[in-house]
Amino acid sequence: MTAPWWQQDAAGMAQAVAARDVTATALVADCLARIAQTDARVNALTAVLSERALARAARIDAGLAHSTHATQAALPLLGVPFAVKNLFDVEGIATLAGSKIERGSAPATADGLLVQRLEAAGAILVGALNMDEYAYGFTTENSHEGACHNPHDLARIAGGSSGGSGAAVAAGQVPITLGSDTNGSIRVPASLCGVFGLKPTFGRLPRTGSFPFISSLDHLGPMARSVRDLALAYDALQGPEAPGAHTDAGCAQRPVEPVAPTLGQGSAGLRIGVLGGYFADNALPEARAAVARVAQALGAEAEPVELPLVEAGRAAAFLITNAEAGALHLDNLRMRAADFEPLSRDRFLAGALIPAAWVARAQRVRGRYARAAAAVLARYDLLLAPATPCAATPIGTERFDLNGRDLPLRPNMGLLTQPISCIGLPVCSVPVWGAHPNLPIGVQLIAAPWREDLALRAAAVLEAAGICQAPVASL
Amino acid sequence: MTAPWWQQDAAGMAQAVAARDVTATALVADCLARIAQTDARVNALTAVLSERALARAARIDAGLAHSTHATQAALPLLGVPFAVKNLFDVEGIATLAGSKIERGSAPATADGLLVQRLEAAGAILVGALNMDEYAYGFTTENSHEGACHNPHDLARIAGGSSGGSGAAVAAGQVPITLGSDTNGSIRVPASLCGVFGLKPTFGRLPRTGSFPFISSLDHLGPMARSVRDLALAYDALQGPEAPGAHTDAGCAQRPVEPVAPTLGQGSAGLRIGVLGGYFADNALPEARAAVARVAQALGAEAEPVELPLVEAGRAAAFLITNAEAGALHLDNLRMRAADFEPLSRDRFLAGALIPAAWVARAQRVRGRYARAAAAVLARYDLLLAPATPCAATPIGTERFDLNGRDLPLRPNMGLLTQPISCIGLPVCSVPVWGAHPNLPIGVQLIAAPWREDLALRAAAVLEAAGICQAPVASL
Repeated sequence: MTAPWWQQDAAGMAQAVAARDVTATALVADCLARIAQTDARVNALTAVLSERALARAARIDAGLAHSTHATQAALPLLGVPFAVKNLFDVEGIATLAGSKIERGSAPATADGLLVQRLEAAGAILVGALNMDEYAYGFTTENSHEGACHNPHDLARIAGGSSGGSGAAVAAGQVPITLGSDTNGSIRVPASLCGVFGLKPTFGRLPRTGSFPFISSLDHLGPMARSVRDLALAYDALQGPEAPGAHTDAGCAQRPVEPVAPTLGQGSAGLRIGVLGGYFADNALPEARAAVARVAQALGAEAEPVELPLVEAGRAAAFLITNAEAGALHLDNLRMRAADFEPLSRDRFLAGALIPAAWVARAQRVRGRYARAAAAVLARYDLLLAPATPCAATPIGTERFDLNGRDLPLRPNMGLLTQPISCIGLPVCSVPVWGAHPNLPIGVQLIAAPWREDLALRAAAVLEAAGICQAPVASL
Repeated sequence: MTAPWWQQDAAGMAQAVAARDVTATALVADCLARIAQTDARVNALTAVLSERALARAARIDAGLAHSTHATQAALPLLGVPFAVKNLFDVEGIATLAGSKIERGSAPATADGLLVQRLEAAGAILVGALNMDEYAYGFTTENSHEGACHNPHDLARIAGGSSGGSGAAVAAGQVPITLGSDTNGSIRVPASLCGVFGLKPTFGRLPRTGSFPFISSLDHLGPMARSVRDLALAYDALQGPEAPGAHTDAGCAQRPVEPVAPTLGQGSAGLRIGVLGGYFADNALPEARAAVARVAQALGAEAEPVELPLVEAGRAAAFLITNAEAGALHLDNLRMRAADFEPLSRDRFLAGALIPAAWVARAQRVRGRYARAAAAVLARYDLLLAPATPCAATPIGTERFDLNGRDLPLRPNMGLLTQPISCIGLPVCSVPVWGAHPNLPIGVQLIAAPWREDLALRAAAVLEAAGICQAPVASL
C-alpha cells in the first residue's frame, strides 16, 4: 500500500488486519501519528489513550498469531481505531461531558456499554472527543477545551455538540466515532464536517455508561466516512439495554436488526418526499440545493411534503430541553454557576426557572405533533430535509441572516434537526459537496421508527452515485 | 324474597335476573326508589339516569323473554344497576369531574370505555356520582354540589375524591360503582364508607373516556359491598386500551387475567408483612387496630416491614400531582380562577408556579423509591397498611391531631395511600368494623404489580372469616 492506513475506511482496515496485511498495532500507531500531526489545529480530542490502545492492539496481534484465536479474524471491526465523545464513560478517566465541573468527578469504573460493544466487535478505543458543555450547543466552541475546528476550513466551526466526533472522522484521525444527538448533535457536525452520521430511532441503542442530557430526547449513534462503516458500527452497537439499567429511555428491547447485509438493496420502489414549508423557509440556498441534488438522485416526488405542527413541535423540544437541562444541573447551577460554559450558562439558569406547567403542555404538544408526523410517514418511506440551515460558519459567529431574519446562530444551527429527533425518528445525515462553493453540507434521510435500514440503503445509493462522499480533509 | 332487592349483592341480582326470579326493570326501579329515599341526605349522586336505565332494563327483559337471547343469561352482571364517579363520560351529559367549570362543556358523545365494559357484562348505568372537584381532594366536600355524607354517620365525610362512589355502595343505592384513584381516591372513601375498593396496577385498566387528573398517576377501579362483586366488576373491566387511544398510561396491554375464579384459593402459604415505620407513625390507634386484626387473621409476620424512602416518595407524588394539576387547568386558572372549588383553588394555583426542575427531581426520587419498594415486594406476597390515618371525620373538619402533630386534614387523609399508588402497586382496601367504636376503617392489602389476584384472595378470606364486611347503612 502506498496510501497511509489512516486514509482507509474501517471495513478495509479490518479486512487487512484479518488477512495479516497489517497489524492492529501498526493501525493504531498510524492513527496516533495522524492525531499528533493534526490535532493541535483541529482540537477534536480531549484525551488520547495511546497506552490503552497500543496494549489492546498488541493483544489482538498476539491473538492473531496463534491459531487458537482464528475466530477473532471474523470480527467486523478487528483492529479498527475509534474515538468517542467525552460523555461516554471510559474506564479510569473522569467523564467530562465537555465540562470543567466534571474534571473533579471520580474516574469511570467501566467503559460505557457502546464502547464495550465496539471493542467486542474488534475495534480499539484511542481517544475521547471534544463537545459542547453538557451537550448543550451546536457549535463545539468549548470555552474550557477550546473550540473544535472544522478540518475542511480551520477557521470554521465543526458543529456540535458532537463536534469532536465529526471533526476526528473528517480529519482522518479515526474512521469511526460515537456521538450523541439530543436535538441534532450528531447530524449538525456530520453536516458541517462532511461525514455520514446516524441518529437511530429513540430507544434503539442503550445509554448505560454515558452522561445524560435530556433523558426523553437523548440518542447515541455513530459517525463515519462511508455508509458501510456506519452500518458496521451501528450493527455492532445494537442490542438490549444492560440488565438492571435504570435509564428511562423506554428503551425498546428491539431485536438486533443488522443493516450491513441490506445496504446493496438500493432505493428503487421507495416513496421519497422532500419536506417543504418550515424546512425550506429555514434553509439557505446552499442547503436547499443539497437537498435538491439528493432528491433528484433518489427520484423523490416533486411536490413538497408538509409536516403539520412542526414549528410547535420544535418549540416544545426547545422548552423541554431547557427545563430538563436546568433540572439535571440544578445543584451546580446553585453552587458554582461561574464554572459553567459562558456560552450556555444563561440558558441553563433560565431552564431551572421554567414552570412545570409549561413543560407539561410542551409534552402534550409534542405528542400531538408526533401523531401528525406518523400520519405523514405512513405515506412515505423517506423524507428529505437539510441537516443544517447553512454550511459551517466562522468560529465566533454570534448571529446569522436566515433568509432575511437576523437570528442568534448557536441555538439555531439545529433548527432543522430538532423537530425530527424530538419525535424519535431515525435519520442518516449524508454529506453533499458542490451545493456550497467549497464546504460540505448534510441532508437528512428521515425514516419511520425502526427503519434505519431504509435511510442507510438510500445513503448507500447516494454514495455509490457520487452524490455524497466524505473525503479526508487535507491538513 | 322478603328483603328488598337493593340489599342484595350484584352476583345475587344477576343470578336472579338470569333465573327470571326478578326482572331487570324491577331491580332498576328498586334502586331508583332507594336513591330517591336516601340521596337527599347522602348526596352521593349528581345525576340520576332513570330514563336511560329503565329503557335499558326493558331491553334486557325483552331479550330474556325471547329464547333467541338465551346467551344473555350468562352475562355475569346481568341487570345489575351501577353508577360512576362523574369524571367518567356518559353519553349525552357533560362530564363534570366535580367541577362547576365543566357544566359548560359539550355533552359526551359516548360512554367511557369502562362504562361500556360493565354494560357489555349486562350491568345498567343508573347515575353519576359526587366527587372532589377535578379529583383534587380526599373528602368530597364539594362546594358546587354540596358535601357527600357518610351513610354510616351523616354528619361525617364519605372520603374522596370518589366519595359518591363509596357512599352510594354503602347506602345500598347500587351494589357496584366506579371511581378513580390518583393518590388514594378509591381507597380513602372505601375506608371511610366501609366498602371494598380495588385500585388495580397502574396501566391495568384503560382510561379512555374519563376526565384526567394526573396522567402518570391516575388509576380507575371498582367499589362494592362484597369481594365477589368487586372481582366480577374487575374482571368485566379488564382488557386493552381502545385502539388509537392517546392516554399516556404506558397502558400495558396485559391479557385479561380473571380473578373471580381464583377467589376461593385462600391465603395459605402467602408471605404477608405489616408495614411499620411511616405507616404506623401516621395512623391513629383505631387504624393500627384494624391492621392488627387483619394481620392476625391472615397470619402475617410479627416483625414490621420498612419501606425505604417512603416519605420522600410521598413528597414526590405530592409535588408531581400539584404541578400536573396546575398544568392541566392552566387556562382556566388564568381566566376564571374564581370558579374553582375554594377548598383546592390555592393548591391548583400553587401547582401552576412550581419550577419544572422540581418535578424532574421528584420523578427521579419516585423512581428510586419504586425500585426500593420492588425489592421489598420480592420478599412478600402482600403488605398491610391502614388505608386512612383515622375513621371518618365530621364534615367541615379543617385540621386533625395525628399522634401529637396538628395537620390540615383534607390533604392528609391520603397520606397512607399516596405512597402506594405513586408506584403503581395494586391494592384492595378492605373494611374493618370494631377497631373504631362505631365506624368502619379500611386496611390496604398491597401486592406486587399485576398481582391483584393475591389481594383479592386475601380479601375473600377476611370476608369469609367475618373480619371484613360491608353492610348496607341504616338510613
